[in-house]
Amino acid sequence: MEVAEVAAEMAATTLGNPEGRVLGRITKIKKILEADVGSWAGRRVLVGGWVKTGREQGKGSFAFLEVNDGSCLANLQVICEASTYPLAELVPTGTSVLVEGELKPPPEGVKQRIELKVDKVLEVGPVGEKYPLPKTRLTLENLRDFMHLRARTNTISAVARIRDELAHATHAFFRQNGFRYIHTPIITTSDCEGAGEMFQATVLFSQAEKLAKEIKENPLPTESDVEAAKLVVKEKGEIVAQLKSTKASKPEITAAVSELNKAKETASRLEERSKLTPGIPVKPDGGFSFDSDFFKKPAFLTVSGQLQVETYACAVGSVYTFGPTFRAENSHTSRHLAEFWMVEPEMAFATLEDDMDYAEEYVKFMCQWLLDNSREDMEFMVKNYDKTAIERLKLVASSPFARVSYTEAVEILMGVTDKKFENKVEWGIDLASEHERYLTEVIFKKPVIVYNYPKGIKAFYMRLNDDQKTVAAMDVLVPKVGELVGGSQREERLDILKQRILDADLPLEIYEWYLDLRRYGTVKHSGFGLGFERMILFATGLDNIRDVIPFPRYPGRADL
Amino acid sequence: MEVAEVAAEMAATTLGNPEGRVLGRITKIKKILEADVGSWAGRRVLVGGWVKTGREQGKGSFAFLEVNDGSCLANLQVICEASTYPLAELVPTGTSVLVEGELKPPPEGVKQRIELKVDKVLEVGPVGEKYPLPKTRLTLENLRDFMHLRARTNTISAVARIRDELAHATHAFFRQNGFRYIHTPIITTSDCEGAGEMFQATVLFSQAEKLAKEIKENPLPTESDVEAAKLVVKEKGEIVAQLKSTKASKPEITAAVSELNKAKETASRLEERSKLTPGIPVKPDGGFSFDSDFFKKPAFLTVSGQLQVETYACAVGSVYTFGPTFRAENSHTSRHLAEFWMVEPEMAFATLEDDMDYAEEYVKFMCQWLLDNSREDMEFMVKNYDKTAIERLKLVASSPFARVSYTEAVEILMGVTDKKFENKVEWGIDLASEHERYLTEVIFKKPVIVYNYPKGIKAFYMRLNDDQKTVAAMDVLVPKVGELVGGSQREERLDILKQRILDADLPLEIYEWYLDLRRYGTVKHSGFGLGFERMILFATGLDNIRDVIPFPRYPGRADL
Repeated sequence: MEVAEVAAEMAATTLGNPEGRVLGRITKIKKILEADVGSWAGRRVLVGGWVKTGREQGKGSFAFLEVNDGSCLANLQVICEASTYPLAELVPTGTSVLVEGELKPPPEGVKQRIELKVDKVLEVGPVGEKYPLPKTRLTLENLRDFMHLRARTNTISAVARIRDELAHATHAFFRQNGFRYIHTPIITTSDCEGAGEMFQATVLFSQAEKLAKEIKENPLPTESDVEAAKLVVKEKGEIVAQLKSTKASKPEITAAVSELNKAKETASRLEERSKLTPGIPVKPDGGFSFDSDFFKKPAFLTVSGQLQVETYACAVGSVYTFGPTFRAENSHTSRHLAEFWMVEPEMAFATLEDDMDYAEEYVKFMCQWLLDNSREDMEFMVKNYDKTAIERLKLVASSPFARVSYTEAVEILMGVTDKKFENKVEWGIDLASEHERYLTEVIFKKPVIVYNYPKGIKAFYMRLNDDQKTVAAMDVLVPKVGELVGGSQREERLDILKQRILDADLPLEIYEWYLDLRRYGTVKHSGFGLGFERMILFATGLDNIRDVIPFPRYPGRADL
Repeated sequence: MEVAEVAAEMAATTLGNPEGRVLGRITKIKKILEADVGSWAGRRVLVGGWVKTGREQGKGSFAFLEVNDGSCLANLQVICEASTYPLAELVPTGTSVLVEGELKPPPEGVKQRIELKVDKVLEVGPVGEKYPLPKTRLTLENLRDFMHLRARTNTISAVARIRDELAHATHAFFRQNGFRYIHTPIITTSDCEGAGEMFQATVLFSQAEKLAKEIKENPLPTESDVEAAKLVVKEKGEIVAQLKSTKASKPEITAAVSELNKAKETASRLEERSKLTPGIPVKPDGGFSFDSDFFKKPAFLTVSGQLQVETYACAVGSVYTFGPTFRAENSHTSRHLAEFWMVEPEMAFATLEDDMDYAEEYVKFMCQWLLDNSREDMEFMVKNYDKTAIERLKLVASSPFARVSYTEAVEILMGVTDKKFENKVEWGIDLASEHERYLTEVIFKKPVIVYNYPKGIKAFYMRLNDDQKTVAAMDVLVPKVGELVGGSQREERLDILKQRILDADLPLEIYEWYLDLRRYGTVKHSGFGLGFERMILFATGLDNIRDVIPFPRYPGRADL
């Protein structure tokens, strides 16, 4: 076929783009700095990055640029001569440069490992005079007003790399343990823990706005418009009746009938349109109507993928979710976000003890991963934010977590004499953050798993223990953060689960699908949830959760 | 410290749970079936799974069970004698079993690889009489009415494993190429492509419902309530004035002032409350007011993380997002979902040619990954859905993609004589699905990258080419699916970008942050987006996108 031949020939020629590939020829600074000086010295490389600091030297005959490309925390020292490029354009902080040159070992006695002697400056992205980030170091709080530029700071880019490493560690851990990654839905119609704290996903506002705009351009028919149209129908009907009674010709009658039908259509369209109500649709009882919303009923942003992922655990065994979850709580603390990421494994045939084992192994695995893969960024955290951050990772990676029952934990806390808690400790209370942190930081000085909580303070789906008083729940508490993981063995017995739903004042109907998992081949199963940002706080030692997610969402703020 | 010693001792004792770990002792069926018969025969294993088919044999003296645990498609043949457990309870399809026994090589001449002779049945989860899935094979469409059970079918569990493999392939590919995984936000206030098609995230309905309920219990004060309260203030004020004028004692005056203040407080509280309006807040101009919504302004579910992730590409180099995205389009096709997952890499210093290179390598990498890691599930797809699925993966993994400019593609299509297109081809049109599929399926018979599209049909952020007519955009078209990837080099030149925003009738103000990326150290950069579900359709050969995501969302449906 001729066309195909022409096409094949075209495709075989190279792309007309004169630039060709650039990124494909760039060497990342991380590779250069990690390598052995001997093996790199003398090699020509193309490097692209941003100037962290630059200064002219030798009476303006050359410039030193500290260039960073984000591949690692460290900068590459770049030397450029005045004959190569106007130095004043290169030295401002934030300038982007694409430069080519030869790698050279630094002069003897100098600390730098290797430096780049530039002989070609291919691209420069200058920085305007009014750079929005001041030279003086901003606090992390102030930086949140520059959401689009803060990734250019050492701290936020280090956090980004640590976050990336922890995400990879997560996938690596579950994959090597035979878990499958399941994407549970963000938009959900099965409300798991009470709609009050959920965001609703809707198109009703844009629908109403569209209608309002349309009505403005093309006003709704009035009652008299409708009456007039009905009158036309009546008239046209009378004409048809008359023609029929006078035995008019077929074509005459057909034409009249066709006119009548048109009039009927117009009238019904007008009548339909006259019923349109601007604004949000309302039901007869006064409540909002979601019949015309996208999903024809209220839909919310998920607070947890657990219930949904159970359907997969009860089919393919060991699974996990890792995705965004939401809480519309009006919470202004340094520990809460409206949008955050959760890791939620769920395992068929797993008991509470399996659950605790996996939670412990997973947290340890992440700590060891950071020690192996994020040493430079962790050292930055130690230097700038938390002296003990690396020690904490080592401790957690190497020592077995303590495990105590809730009852034992309460006994321990009740025996504490050297500290007065704000919240009184007695059996049955939900442990407060001060209790959790005292257990892990003061008593055990390492992570603690507390298990078998009173059923009254835990969710309906947690498995009732034989004592009828506690459920097979567990929380992993860690120094610095408190609760990092919450999990449980799930109630797999149909009758008990039904009763627990009723006891929690929840309607059985919306959980019929969940009960079906127990009706047909039920299995013991367990799972837990780990707040991903909490893990990053724990690892880095940073104080505010808003600084460990790229784009934090909290009351009043959703920048970009 | 005594408490700590007690605690340490407690923690050292083993957990009181009599069950201990179960999952930790189970052997996955995949491991058993993959292993060499010789090395496994005679070994004792614990296996947990669901009976796919069961039948009693030898006049009820024993039963064959085909047990599946989701770790792979294949079942393990399990033999149980009547003396071990009541066989009638084991054989119904869907029954869950936890069984222990010895692995045996099957009798000579039998096809089975290895079988499990059970001597202990530890747990059984029976199936009620009315199993909701009928024995006759349901269509995939009918299965969508059983969202919570469909993962128990061969097709949906195979899709889940393939989806998991493709997710891991994605992370593996980008990691080995030095990309960092960035979590872009789901909730966004920067509307990238027009609010009409976006879901809005709001708490206004629940706020209004809460208020309505509260008002019902505690009606709003009427005008006369407020007047009465104001009268009290007046009276109390007069008393104070009188006491002062009569030079009453200090305590007397203080008491009267205190009463006056209380009355003032009551009055202002009542007045405040009398102003509460039930329903959705409205602005003076009649539009909805979002001042009291969670983010104090309209917030939407993201349609793409691209713009946000550019802030990271312009700081740390090569990055990617992989997460859910949303379209509130009233689309009922087999190719669209309201919630779907997208992979969006973004690379600093990358040209369009780099962009095409990475897109091609990434798609190839995923195809090879499935050939290496999902052979059994892919063979199932070939047998049941698409004979050419594995051939297609091999073709794509091994042959270079064709590359033609849009102009060349249009020329080729205009020269086609053996097919009449529904949509006329001429320079300037947006290629329709029929054109795209003709190019990839008929002309090139392999994936094609079309690049340099007319600027009029592409987004404002795509880089204007020197011809002033086209932009540096590219689409990857593949057989079976059509467009799989769309990408571009981004406009890095401040002035041109501004003009393009204005030309697109978009307000500059909301893109100031985006323009800042060009004001301060701008770099050439490029990226693309791959629809993850489209990739799964392409790989499996399945026809409907609703079957390749665990919980599909489309108009009128958001089950679970």
